[in-house]
Amino acid sequence: MAKDKKLVEAITPMGEDFAQWYTDVVKKAELIDYSSVRGCMILRPNGYAIWENIQKTLDGMFKETGVENVYMPLFIPESLLQREKDHVEGFAPEVAWVTHGGLEPLQERLCVRPTSETLFCDLYSNIVQSYRDLPKLYNQWCSVVRWEKTTRPFLRSMEFLWQEGHTAHATAEEAEERTVQMLNVYSDFCEKVLAIPMIKGRKTDKEKFAGAHATYTIEALMHDGKALQSGTSHNFGDGFAKAFGIQFTDKENKLQYAHQTSWGMSTRIIGAIIMVHGDDSGLVLPPRIAPTQVMVIPIAQHKEGVLEKANEVKEALANAGYRVKLDDSEKSPGWKFSEQEIRGIPVRIELGPKDIEANQAVVVRRDTREKIVVSLDELSTQLGEILDQMQNDMLERARNHRDSHTYMATTYEEFKKTIEEKPGFVKAMWCAEEACELKIKEDTGATSRCMPFEQERIAETCVCCGKPAKSLVYWGRAY
Amino acid sequence: MAKDKKLVEAITPMGEDFAQWYTDVVKKAELIDYSSVRGCMILRPNGYAIWENIQKTLDGMFKETGVENVYMPLFIPESLLQREKDHVEGFAPEVAWVTHGGLEPLQERLCVRPTSETLFCDLYSNIVQSYRDLPKLYNQWCSVVRWEKTTRPFLRSMEFLWQEGHTAHATAEEAEERTVQMLNVYSDFCEKVLAIPMIKGRKTDKEKFAGAHATYTIEALMHDGKALQSGTSHNFGDGFAKAFGIQFTDKENKLQYAHQTSWGMSTRIIGAIIMVHGDDSGLVLPPRIAPTQVMVIPIAQHKEGVLEKANEVKEALANAGYRVKLDDSEKSPGWKFSEQEIRGIPVRIELGPKDIEANQAVVVRRDTREKIVVSLDELSTQLGEILDQMQNDMLERARNHRDSHTYMATTYEEFKKTIEEKPGFVKAMWCAEEACELKIKEDTGATSRCMPFEQERIAETCVCCGKPAKSLVYWGRAY
Repeated sequence: MAKDKKLVEAITPMGEDFAQWYTDVVKKAELIDYSSVRGCMILRPNGYAIWENIQKTLDGMFKETGVENVYMPLFIPESLLQREKDHVEGFAPEVAWVTHGGLEPLQERLCVRPTSETLFCDLYSNIVQSYRDLPKLYNQWCSVVRWEKTTRPFLRSMEFLWQEGHTAHATAEEAEERTVQMLNVYSDFCEKVLAIPMIKGRKTDKEKFAGAHATYTIEALMHDGKALQSGTSHNFGDGFAKAFGIQFTDKENKLQYAHQTSWGMSTRIIGAIIMVHGDDSGLVLPPRIAPTQVMVIPIAQHKEGVLEKANEVKEALANAGYRVKLDDSEKSPGWKFSEQEIRGIPVRIELGPKDIEANQAVVVRRDTREKIVVSLDELSTQLGEILDQMQNDMLERARNHRDSHTYMATTYEEFKKTIEEKPGFVKAMWCAEEACELKIKEDTGATSRCMPFEQERIAETCVCCGKPAKSLVYWGRAY
Repeated sequence: MAKDKKLVEAITPMGEDFAQWYTDVVKKAELIDYSSVRGCMILRPNGYAIWENIQKTLDGMFKETGVENVYMPLFIPESLLQREKDHVEGFAPEVAWVTHGGLEPLQERLCVRPTSETLFCDLYSNIVQSYRDLPKLYNQWCSVVRWEKTTRPFLRSMEFLWQEGHTAHATAEEAEERTVQMLNVYSDFCEKVLAIPMIKGRKTDKEKFAGAHATYTIEALMHDGKALQSGTSHNFGDGFAKAFGIQFTDKENKLQYAHQTSWGMSTRIIGAIIMVHGDDSGLVLPPRIAPTQVMVIPIAQHKEGVLEKANEVKEALANAGYRVKLDDSEKSPGWKFSEQEIRGIPVRIELGPKDIEANQAVVVRRDTREKIVVSLDELSTQLGEILDQMQNDMLERARNHRDSHTYMATTYEEFKKTIEEKPGFVKAMWCAEEACELKIKEDTGATSRCMPFEQERIAETCVCCGKPAKSLVYWGRAY
């Protein structure tokens, strides 16, 4: 048991140092390893398998809305990146530049894509001619590179995996509809599959995407009370279409500019899963996204019949559609429990000689540690109920945590005190001037997370300057 | 009908100009578009969907053998690339170099991965300590970059998508076993799913991978008689382990070097599908890999009940598990037939008022153009048989084509004449000297494709120099 303890002790308690807890969890759960390239992470099997499940589910949801996948080049010629003014200003300072191919210098530098609006626009300008060619609903799964100075696993790294959807439409209305539709896809996915409740809203002009007409966002609250932007959907209007000449003839044979959107979700969301659901023993994965949902752990496995029965149980559950593994290694049961807990596998099934004699198993929930004795005859059906219950409980707990850490402020003193003393979201009114956003950031470190779709009028004046308020804003310190 | 003809005429006949036929097919079937970056291709929805299906099937086959997926960084520091001498010599001349990050020059150049042996070795040197940590069976799906001077869609491009598996083992035997196992996975996949028969064998030292102890390959014959290397599997022995310090303590507590393998298949294989199965009307996709297997095309769709019935048929087939679409656009049936043929959709179902009256549909096979009248009551079951038959016939045709274009030569005159006059594989004996490979390439343009696992002794002397023969080699001009 000495060894078992050591495995658990390796994780710094959350309450002691949340940042260190996070780093310990990603490392001990073997989600990630550092590489020889500064700021680039290695996604190990436990980490990549989560991304694979996210990809599979989200991709299915995209396709149901008519989206098709493509693959665009990794490189963007400098001249193409410069075509849209706001866009290049936003991204040029943080891109990696390829200057040599083989042994020779290039005539024109290529940047490694930080995002692919420019490439999609270039393609659309070639393949969109008539209203019959619209809409184009393309998406790609790829990695992008942004030259970040400070990096953290999943949350901010020089290279990360994501999907980027890029659509082109005949009308402004259709583009707006698609922008909101995809934000809702993200939000539904996070709530139903990742058990993370989201605040949906619009970014202020200061926080919107470089080149966008409007950016919508989903914002989640982490366990430490900091916010995490978890997915964004942008409406570009016809700005990019004008810069790239994406024109089509409409039904009346008139030449029109296309209206475009883009939307993305990245491996950053794995950071949210960790920081919303994790605890001092490690990761806690929602059953619907967990690569392994069930770990069967035999007790006294050297005794006759135990391993055979454990195998039988595993096979039966696998055939019933569960993602299940059997840990038949030579480690002690306690060591196996710790490993299963660190990795966040939703339930373990303990099965020893006495259980087998009584035709039962002990199902232990990872989130509550509740032990549930289940007859082996009913294991397959009851397990589904236990996992569903766990999934629902996790969402409820996350929602309660978020709601109980969402505050209101109507005066600036109250606002500053809340941000300082009560980590969480602060709802407050805003005059719509960037000056107030800048002042709030300087005074408190908080930024405007979004203007929520569900607006309330909690005061008549801006919480910062006292001028007439235009809208309610969620504020918070953020990752 | 004038318009329909135009669509078909846009493809240059194979017999007239095979290279132009190929380019026409990839463009007209909308598999690919050219981008603003020289040598980088855009995979459009029709092309990417084929890759998605390849990926899904192959990934399942890998996982059945215990392989786990990971994601490694896009960049390799120059010093890491240089760690293994043969490897860097092989790849340094064809890599893209990142020299600037954001606005600043880098202290050390980073190359964009041409392949990731060095990164996997670096990881393994950190995470492999004991024999208990072995084997490591990792794979990643990603894109790689090689600075090619001349490029062709799918066959050779500056950036391409692939998977690269990298494994580490405790013993030389295990590594050799895995190398051959993965070659067999590729070969089975190509035969059973892509309907492409493969010659399995070992590469000569001249043709093997930079840094490998042995390279195994699968080689296919294209319609024009040229060979295409379609997948490779490498045994590295302990060469990389020694260069990167991948050591573990074995069961006797002795320090040992790991033995490694790597294996890859890329979007190049889509080039093989096109050039093995395609015809003068365009692409012909094997049913098991086709993103859309069935296109329902209504005849006289303006007539009452036609579109409703077509929709009903489509829904029934979709529910039965077929990948089916309905073309209810306003184009003429002839135009729709041409599009379905160009895109290589395995069968179309023609359904008009008279068919509906007779409770039947006409199923047309893409490969043979055979028209099969099927009762609507039996459509779902008969369609499965038709697709299976087509899949088998396609493999048989490809095998017959390959076998009837495989020749033998025992004298150099005969060899040269065959290569020149009869496009295909030439089996001939070889002395194992690189000098003969070089001479043959210079005289005929043919290269050694592989030393097949199924060796025959068709002569006692090397076909080129007349010295004693060591092994039979498949020779051919290749892509």
